[in-house]
Amino acid sequence: MEEKTVAQSRAIMSQVMLPSQANPAGNVHGGEIMKMMDTTASVTAARHARTNIVTARVDELIFHTPIFVGALVTCRAKLIFVGRSSMEISVTVSAEYLQEEKPPEIALTAYFTMVSLDDHGFPSQVPRLKLSTPEEIECFETGKQRYLLHKGNKKSTPTC
Amino acid sequence: MEEKTVAQSRAIMSQVMLPSQANPAGNVHGGEIMKMMDTTASVTAARHARTNIVTARVDELIFHTPIFVGALVTCRAKLIFVGRSSMEISVTVSAEYLQEEKPPEIALTAYFTMVSLDDHGFPSQVPRLKLSTPEEIECFETGKQRYLLHKGNKKSTPTC
Amino acid sequence: MEEKTVAQSRAIMSQVMLPSQANPAGNVHGGEIMKMMDTTASVTAARHARTNIVTARVDELIFHTPIFVGALVTCRAKLIFVGRSSMEISVTVSAEYLQEEKPPEIALTAYFTMVSLDDHGFPSQVPRLKLSTPEEIECFETGKQRYLLHKGNKKSTPTC
Amino acid sequence: MEEKTVAQSRAIMSQVMLPSQANPAGNVHGGEIMKMMDTTASVTAARHARTNIVTARVDELIFHTPIFVGALVTCRAKLIFVGRSSMEISVTVSAEYLQEEKPPEIALTAYFTMVSLDDHGFPSQVPRLKLSTPEEIECFETGKQRYLLHKGNKKSTPTC
Amino acid sequence: MEEKTVAQSRAIMSQVMLPSQANPAGNVHGGEIMKMMDTTASVTAARHARTNIVTARVDELIFHTPIFVGALVTCRAKLIFVGRSSMEISVTVSAEYLQEEKPPEIALTAYFTMVSLDDHGFPSQVPRLKLSTPEEIECFETGKQRYLLHKGNKKSTPTC
Amino acid sequence: MEEKTVAQSRAIMSQVMLPSQANPAGNVHGGEIMKMMDTTASVTAARHARTNIVTARVDELIFHTPIFVGALVTCRAKLIFVGRSSMEISVTVSAEYLQEEKPPEIALTAYFTMVSLDDHGFPSQVPRLKLSTPEEIECFETGKQRYLLHKGNKKSTPTC
Repeated sequence: MEEKTVAQSRAIMSQVMLPSQANPAGNVHGGEIMKMMDTTASVTAARHARTNIVTARVDELIFHTPIFVGALVTCRAKLIFVGRSSMEISVTVSAEYLQEEKPPEIALTAYFTMVSLDDHGFPSQVPRLKLSTPEEIECFETGKQRYLLHKGNKKSTPTC
Repeated sequence: MEEKTVAQSRAIMSQVMLPSQANPAGNVHGGEIMKMMDTTASVTAARHARTNIVTARVDELIFHTPIFVGALVTCRAKLIFVGRSSMEISVTVSAEYLQEEKPPEIALTAYFTMVSLDDHGFPSQVPRLKLSTPEEIECFETGKQRYLLHKGNKKSTPTC
Repeated sequence: MEEKTVAQSRAIMSQVMLPSQANPAGNVHGGEIMKMMDTTASVTAARHARTNIVTARVDELIFHTPIFVGALVTCRAKLIFVGRSSMEISVTVSAEYLQEEKPPEIALTAYFTMVSLDDHGFPSQVPRLKLSTPEEIECFETGKQRYLLHKGNKKSTPTC
Repeated sequence: MEEKTVAQSRAIMSQVMLPSQANPAGNVHGGEIMKMMDTTASVTAARHARTNIVTARVDELIFHTPIFVGALVTCRAKLIFVGRSSMEISVTVSAEYLQEEKPPEIALTAYFTMVSLDDHGFPSQVPRLKLSTPEEIECFETGKQRYLLHKGNKKSTPTC
Repeated sequence: MEEKTVAQSRAIMSQVMLPSQANPAGNVHGGEIMKMMDTTASVTAARHARTNIVTARVDELIFHTPIFVGALVTCRAKLIFVGRSSMEISVTVSAEYLQEEKPPEIALTAYFTMVSLDDHGFPSQVPRLKLSTPEEIECFETGKQRYLLHKGNKKSTPTC
Repeated sequence: MEEKTVAQSRAIMSQVMLPSQANPAGNVHGGEIMKMMDTTASVTAARHARTNIVTARVDELIFHTPIFVGALVTCRAKLIFVGRSSMEISVTVSAEYLQEEKPPEIALTAYFTMVSLDDHGFPSQVPRLKLSTPEEIECFETGKQRYLLHKGNKKSTPTC
């Protein structure tokens, strides 16, 4: 199985936020953004693995600024780390208001862990990640730390 | 401001998963469940604070089992920890298939951090949490650890 | 086939009403609530019969108070009467506004008649209802009256 | 206030049923049809009263045949009876499968009671109904019976 | 294969525009109307051909007036021209505000070209169009001109 | 008012097609794609004009290939021609199936004419288009031809 670069699986998805995606307070429902982030992460995972993809976990999903109806929201996903069948993907969400000339703002960030499944629904091996820059190497290391940490706690349902 | 118990703000929300909530693979879109978890967490936060609530972060959101169309999905949220204006809430999702007599299975778990806002959109103080059981006290401690950890990293956008 | 109690099939479903569920006047579309009531009734019917369930009729669906976007709406369904394959279920809807400390208000009530179907789509026998309280016995009687009344008029399309 | 005929407020609404309107069993969710019926009844009521309209109650909503995804569903609403501010409307739903040459089948029928509201949200008087045919006169009488019956039980929440 | 008249396949579809169909500016999303036009055109095509229908192209779709939430929108579709397997259909959209006594206004018009498919997904022959009035004959001619014009450019992706 | 280049307002939007966007035949509803094209065109128009944008017309919208649920659909919009307040934008839609290694296919193309509105809802002047390449100049000319052609027929509702 050939190695693939981070660039080969990058994904960018954009949507204009509609009134039907608002929460009762009138700005965009956080769950709508999470759904869009999940989809973008799965596009990156599918580009890397070319298999069926399921979400395994989400960590450090942070809302930096609220998003309002009418925003052009852009999700960017890139691979940080790959294990045998699991892939850690960073997702960054920015919001841009087109009536203004201002640059987009980062609104959310998160790490999604996606797993590649074979046709029988079992975890399947994914291509290794070809790291090209010092930043990619460093991020891979931090991703590996999180991977090993989570692997220890795996399967257990939290007591709190 | 009066203290409130964990029991006073517990929330339970249920939905039957419809075909309109499926992902292309035919089971329930992870984003739909995250949206439902976010809403349940905000109900608990609003019951405690009686104010406007925004989601600040989500941690350790774990998919334990997939959920299929037709499942009766139940989200349970309860307060773990409260700071001055922020509340950490654990959310547990179970799925039940009503044509079968089997007990519901835990499908996802996560921690949501919600913030109480006053009418001007600024963080506002919330009631303290009255802890009643050893388990509640222990969970409060672990929540506090996470809170202090996140507080250190606050505002910084991740470099990976 | 074993008898089952009313308690064994009770169902409670909750949702926060979103702007996407509003009617043009800005409060919650009656049809959205009816959809949620229908689902809750079918959960109760499925818990009792453990089969596929279809809705046969709805009677005396009454809107007691309007429901506004942002309300936490709770549907409660319980069995009133069972025939051979049909089940009459009472559904009560309450609405609660979480920024206020007030108790929930009853917003709608109705009777749903659901039918149990076997795998070929034919009506199938359901467990008898084990009545435990005087109230359950009295409600069963009134449900039976309605059942017998409807049975007479069955199949005929109304002329008005 | 001028009288209006039944014909002046008749409403017909049609939709093709999409997969997003299916229930988990794969045919059309009953709640989707009820929502469409409610809308059609409110169009008839608004045509008669030219005011804001709310649904007060639904009676004898009967599912005569199931409806499948892909059906062209047509709702027809016509006034049966008018009181001072309330209007009873009969709604008939038919389903047609366009790949076949067969005539549409009646799938549901119901009576909707709608109330006209003034700009302050209070019940407001509606035009009287000009009855033109023996059938309209007879239907008006049966509607009046139901109206008087319901008026007696009004406000009371059912005990079952 | 028998000829069919224009009248035999006319279609009328109506919907009340809901807040969930609004764009960020608060009036109805153009895409929602286009979706409804596409559906109405496909009903007309299916009534004529009694086969599976796909949309091939849309021409001269013009927005004459904006449509606001709460409007009763009515789409009318009728056959203009039929080729061997393709059908050109004119679609007219009108909007009506029921609180007012004013007649509906024409809001959009367009020509949709739909193609009849057989069970293997290949274009299949459709009944010829029996023209009854001078207007139908004239419209058929203009439709034929557009058909021949498009046939020339067929398959080529535009360079601009 | 400064000139702007074609590059400055290009827009790219992507979405994974979900089962909730299917038509009864099971592939993606043409109306869903048109809605996405309309949004992408309005993003390009808003980037150029920084005002409120409405759709005026759509021409030569062609379905080159069907799109299936699960496709990653990408809409690309770029300015072709600008008049005083109107902008002609070409929109190209491609579809990509991520489980396969194949390049995306062009699925639809169209021209959208968008109009810039001031705060009172009147057409407002937009920046002129700075043309940089021979292709851009040629496309501008063909756009201008269409613009002049449509201007002649403006306002008139088609007779067919």
